[in-house]
Amino acid sequence: MPRLITSFSNETVKRLRSLRDKKARRTEGLFLAEGLRIIAEARDSGRLPELIAFSSEHGVHPLATEIIDATERAGGDALEVPSELLAKMSGKDNPQMLIGAYRQSDTALEQLDRAAAPLWLVAQALRDPGNIGTILRTGDAVGAGGLILVDDCADPFSVEAVRASMGAVFTQGIAAARWDEFLAWLRGGPGQLVGTSLRTDTDYLDARYAEPCFILVGNEQQGLPADYEARCDLLVKMPMLGRADSLNAAVAAAVMAFQVRASWRR
Amino acid sequence: MPRLITSFSNETVKRLRSLRDKKARRTEGLFLAEGLRIIAEARDSGRLPELIAFSSEHGVHPLATEIIDATERAGGDALEVPSELLAKMSGKDNPQMLIGAYRQSDTALEQLDRAAAPLWLVAQALRDPGNIGTILRTGDAVGAGGLILVDDCADPFSVEAVRASMGAVFTQGIAAARWDEFLAWLRGGPGQLVGTSLRTDTDYLDARYAEPCFILVGNEQQGLPADYEARCDLLVKMPMLGRADSLNAAVAAAVMAFQVRASWRR
Repeated sequence: MPRLITSFSNETVKRLRSLRDKKARRTEGLFLAEGLRIIAEARDSGRLPELIAFSSEHGVHPLATEIIDATERAGGDALEVPSELLAKMSGKDNPQMLIGAYRQSDTALEQLDRAAAPLWLVAQALRDPGNIGTILRTGDAVGAGGLILVDDCADPFSVEAVRASMGAVFTQGIAAARWDEFLAWLRGGPGQLVGTSLRTDTDYLDARYAEPCFILVGNEQQGLPADYEARCDLLVKMPMLGRADSLNAAVAAAVMAFQVRASWRR
Repeated sequence: MPRLITSFSNETVKRLRSLRDKKARRTEGLFLAEGLRIIAEARDSGRLPELIAFSSEHGVHPLATEIIDATERAGGDALEVPSELLAKMSGKDNPQMLIGAYRQSDTALEQLDRAAAPLWLVAQALRDPGNIGTILRTGDAVGAGGLILVDDCADPFSVEAVRASMGAVFTQGIAAARWDEFLAWLRGGPGQLVGTSLRTDTDYLDARYAEPCFILVGNEQQGLPADYEARCDLLVKMPMLGRADSLNAAVAAAVMAFQVRASWRR
């Protein structure tokens, strides 16, 4: 039976709320997902929260009830709270009626099985959590194995990244590493590292992409450092027909990933 | 000579700050762009602000000085303000040293010349201003003529959309219309309306795209209404290899736009 909690000073409520904070997420090893859609997506991928909080003021969806029950059966903790308390936890005016706290997956590179997928996405120093979530979502769509975060990236387990991922945070592999660690791991097996660059004549439509293909996307402001480009197996150029010389990072990753897939279907 | 203003209650300062608000933007017909990069981009596209505010506490970039001078010569108003005042205007902890207020372009459909470009983007009920800005940026990259906002979309002149557009708000045509107005305008001339859908067998790689091609992207949550899909000349399916059945709206627009361009190069 879910506990009914009405006080904001309740320890579990405070713990859930603290997970909006990166430091607390790291200490606890947990992260938040909000809303029935993404929590149902997680369940369908075999993932249940360790903590779940819900409000019943506007009724409880049968699917939410099912997930709350399953969470408790699996040893998790379920709290029923007033909706204004849930609003404070989610930091939104229009709060979702359901919040879950999930165990973060291990982000060691060694956890990734590169043979498990022909395509992987690699982001270097991406600062926007929305971009990271969007790239995870795209990775799901193109059947990527996961996303490798190189250097100092935004937290893939932040609320904003989780929301933008639309559930892909539960299905895509996620690893984090420094550039030299990533290169050492990459060169320990098969893998073509592909970067987009303005300093090449190879059109992205004409290149030959090899499995497993690792698509590398650089920082939102600076793009890829020149010495990172130099370590790529293949640099390709996307035509830029207007005034600007770059795309949004998540857009660039998606156009490349769909083109690599398209080239393999031809 | 720029006026030196130090009071937050100055009328021009209040007017600039008010432009963070949609209502004020509509009443004034102005919008804000922040930072030298985007303001220089505007100038290179022939656009100067009507009002410009800057801080000289960390020095003034020569390019900024040039644009401030040009703004004044063109009859615009330039204010030098303390950086904490600029921070309050921009609502950011790390404010840009330069903020400009620009005249909004006319968003009537009749302003668009469909013959000016082979490709146009159309967004239906997009609610995220970041998505709108990102689609404008993509439009610039693919040589689109502009973006048509159908039904109730987020404001393309909001600070967030302008920022995400990376200057494309100054170069892409922007129109807003109800669906029936848009259809009437579209059918008044040549134009292939292309929607992405799960309810078709036509692969997006195999379709034949005709100029001028109008790529229609639906709302972030609901996608395109079925009766809107029914009015498209062509529905195409993008393969979704994972668990999810949709992409981020700006990502979908970009993958489609690049593919339409790619198909014309083959």
